[in-house]
Amino acid sequence: MEWKNFDELKAYEALKAVKPVSVKEVMAGENGAKRVKEYSVPMSSGLVYNYAAKAVDEDILAVLQNLADEQSLTEKYKALYEGEIINTGEKRLVLHQLCRGQLGADVVVNGVNEREFYVEQQKRCAEFAKKVHNGEIVNEKGETYTTACQIGIGGSDLGPRALYLSLEGWAKYNNTLKMDAKFISNVDPDDALNVLSQIDISRTIFVLVSKSGTTLETLTNETFVKNAIEKAGCDASKHMVAVTSQTSPLAGNPDYMDSFYMDDYIGGRFSSCSAVGGCILSLAFGPEVFAEILNGAHAADELAKNTNIKENPAMIDALIGVYERNFLGYSATAVLPYSQALSRFPAHLQQADMESNGKSVNRFGQPVSYVTGPIIFGEPGTNGQHSFYQLLHQGTDIIPIQFMGFKNNQMANDLVIQNSTSQQKLNANVAAQIMAFACGKDDDNANKYFAGGRPSSIIAGDQLTPASLGAILAHYENKIMFQGFIWNLNSFDQEGVQLGKVLAKKVLAKDTDGALTAYSELLGIF
Amino acid sequence: MEWKNFDELKAYEALKAVKPVSVKEVMAGENGAKRVKEYSVPMSSGLVYNYAAKAVDEDILAVLQNLADEQSLTEKYKALYEGEIINTGEKRLVLHQLCRGQLGADVVVNGVNEREFYVEQQKRCAEFAKKVHNGEIVNEKGETYTTACQIGIGGSDLGPRALYLSLEGWAKYNNTLKMDAKFISNVDPDDALNVLSQIDISRTIFVLVSKSGTTLETLTNETFVKNAIEKAGCDASKHMVAVTSQTSPLAGNPDYMDSFYMDDYIGGRFSSCSAVGGCILSLAFGPEVFAEILNGAHAADELAKNTNIKENPAMIDALIGVYERNFLGYSATAVLPYSQALSRFPAHLQQADMESNGKSVNRFGQPVSYVTGPIIFGEPGTNGQHSFYQLLHQGTDIIPIQFMGFKNNQMANDLVIQNSTSQQKLNANVAAQIMAFACGKDDDNANKYFAGGRPSSIIAGDQLTPASLGAILAHYENKIMFQGFIWNLNSFDQEGVQLGKVLAKKVLAKDTDGALTAYSELLGIF
Repeated sequence: MEWKNFDELKAYEALKAVKPVSVKEVMAGENGAKRVKEYSVPMSSGLVYNYAAKAVDEDILAVLQNLADEQSLTEKYKALYEGEIINTGEKRLVLHQLCRGQLGADVVVNGVNEREFYVEQQKRCAEFAKKVHNGEIVNEKGETYTTACQIGIGGSDLGPRALYLSLEGWAKYNNTLKMDAKFISNVDPDDALNVLSQIDISRTIFVLVSKSGTTLETLTNETFVKNAIEKAGCDASKHMVAVTSQTSPLAGNPDYMDSFYMDDYIGGRFSSCSAVGGCILSLAFGPEVFAEILNGAHAADELAKNTNIKENPAMIDALIGVYERNFLGYSATAVLPYSQALSRFPAHLQQADMESNGKSVNRFGQPVSYVTGPIIFGEPGTNGQHSFYQLLHQGTDIIPIQFMGFKNNQMANDLVIQNSTSQQKLNANVAAQIMAFACGKDDDNANKYFAGGRPSSIIAGDQLTPASLGAILAHYENKIMFQGFIWNLNSFDQEGVQLGKVLAKKVLAKDTDGALTAYSELLGIF
Repeated sequence: MEWKNFDELKAYEALKAVKPVSVKEVMAGENGAKRVKEYSVPMSSGLVYNYAAKAVDEDILAVLQNLADEQSLTEKYKALYEGEIINTGEKRLVLHQLCRGQLGADVVVNGVNEREFYVEQQKRCAEFAKKVHNGEIVNEKGETYTTACQIGIGGSDLGPRALYLSLEGWAKYNNTLKMDAKFISNVDPDDALNVLSQIDISRTIFVLVSKSGTTLETLTNETFVKNAIEKAGCDASKHMVAVTSQTSPLAGNPDYMDSFYMDDYIGGRFSSCSAVGGCILSLAFGPEVFAEILNGAHAADELAKNTNIKENPAMIDALIGVYERNFLGYSATAVLPYSQALSRFPAHLQQADMESNGKSVNRFGQPVSYVTGPIIFGEPGTNGQHSFYQLLHQGTDIIPIQFMGFKNNQMANDLVIQNSTSQQKLNANVAAQIMAFACGKDDDNANKYFAGGRPSSIIAGDQLTPASLGAILAHYENKIMFQGFIWNLNSFDQEGVQLGKVLAKKVLAKDTDGALTAYSELLGIF
């Protein structure tokens, strides 16, 4: 197993030489129908990854399989989950997959079995949540808690928030929502003030999440919230738990009701399955639901072991994405879930992908001479159709699309209106959009002409449930990991966020000159 | 005044020949401070548009001024607001600016003074809202209404929703929120079900918004909501108003409490200042607040008349954006407001910009041979810093940034923590990010090296108020309009959304073949 730059590979040269596929041609007529049936990889939890409308054929897929083999993708994945130092910049292991299952040999660091450590923390979150739900843990007045509010930013916010919103309606509909969840993240004081105005502080547990225990925004919001708790006549130590690393100043601190732990081997943007997501989601939905998310994610992790790319949805998704980025020259990917519950899932993926692979140096710190991570953006369909799809259909750049769609909605209470349910209308739009992008439409009026040839894939399933949600989460995490391997990046550090932090501290210390002083004046800081 | 393609202009050739500016060099040292002071255009309502950190200098600005003059930008703007058929594809006038003020000569169509018509509708919305607020209009039981819920999609949703969220916290803090506002847009039944579960239907006024009265998603959601109203034992005609055109089937229909009108000269994505935004925002905040938004927007429209680009913030913003897109080769723009209240403003701009200028044909329906509208995406800072900024700082593509920041937060209740308020910390991050992107940082470790040279601009102001919000809204609308003029596009139609609608109808009618049938099966529609 060697770590090689992408452009050193034989497959790189081979991809340069492949005959391009016209999506418009191959998706027309019965051949298109055949592709939809054949170019479909089963995922777990009733999902499939379908890539019929991508610009690939058997020749290109064969080269992509060679690429996967030559770059040792499955071996590198195994090395990762069995504890090699994959995060080379920070000299750390990368073990988020172990939060949801055992994938290979035990990983033991300094006598600690890491998988057991993560499971132990999940159990502790579960027990805490059960005691809150059954009234063993109550507030100063002996009342039950009704709301859980996460204080975190970046990976401590986006993933857990996206997952919560994905299941909030489903849980309400099934009468299984145990507690409302809220989220405070921005250092903008209006964010905290707005959330605080919506909740009964006396019956809220705040979940303070910071791995290092030193994140400026999060600690500022903690002080902000503690002030509000005191103003409400409550005792902050009865209203706050910490999720942090065992070495942080927040760990085991009597200022908190309890502390739950992750460690340096769980990156922020991959932490939803650790205590970072586990605490708030167990409080909101109950530990059983969180366990189902983990099971769905683990099943996806197992599939990611397959060396045959046609049996490995995350890997083939990654490979096609790299082909589009490096050889077709597409600079962005749109993520378009046809499910309102997934409204914030694109924002989570935006972080997970862009923070992991938005890099210009390889894992050894050497500049690479090929493009890496694309822009990721998206909104739920059908809303996006009435918004930015104009550019996707008729703009001057081609933007590949990742659709998601489900046969059934979450709440069952659907209505037949004009001979179809809302869910059928929703899905009719997904099918229609894929074909409109792929095949376009000829028209003598150039303004009504659609060139087509705009590639998309879809993750399709029966329903958005805790298990299928977990599978989708892990699918994308694994896709991002594989793309990092292909590009020979370290997908698990984020040096690009450091400089801004350093300069912001200088501003607050008034240790500035030149334009930094001028901007500080413009913004009323000095 | 001639309508010419961008690449037919002398200024196009001149821009090809300009000497590029190194943002890293010009923003260093005292020259950077000088640029921050000089490259700042006053906007209305205490705002400035500052472009110090853009890759321009006096030479390039001179060519951009020539471009503005040669492409007759101010004359075309005047033609637009004085009633020429600027939307050539649909043969329509474009009059959204008249919703907020008189800019030139009266526009009279078929004997109707358009400005007076829009003002009349605003007055009718205002009177209706006042009667709801003071209890003259009540529900079946004689109770006041507490909630207003917009049912719309695309421009009938994104703009009004973004504006509502921008002022919700501010109004609550000042105890001036008259009614809560909610929004239903997605045809996904879970969207409507989720919103309906959060409100007291018996005390809600639903605002049904569809210009044509035929939008599938909106009418489906209307039926959905009417069903819920009946289930709640209420009379739908006491809980719904329509915002539509006078010729639509919804107009003057006794099924609604009242109807308010716009017309074909107000495009969906430019409709926030018409009754589309006016009804829901007047109900939520009171008509006086809506009037302040309009005044702020009108002041921005007046500035857009200036021929000197250094006195016309929307025009210089547009020109710099075109230079970046067509000559520096940047394919996207990130919109990053440092204000949580603006959380959905990037989604509104995404529609406004991408749907207007994401086109490959000019206003005469002829293909153009240059790139047009970029991808627009964004999230509020500081959140984005802990997410996708990694790619913005160190990714292989350069993505220009539009920052927004305010000296003061909306709710005043700020706290000093570690010697600075949260608002100061927030703004320290804006200043720091601009400089980090512009000047980067040398480091022997390539992983910690920041190349810099990543351009940004900022709209900076005292506070996000109704007036400054209106000014920002109009600034971007006018920027988009000017870019459309430069590229010689019709920014006011959206033919690219039609094909998907046609195919979706075919699916629902089971009139499909090939891959469209196969996808419909995959998604459980057939």
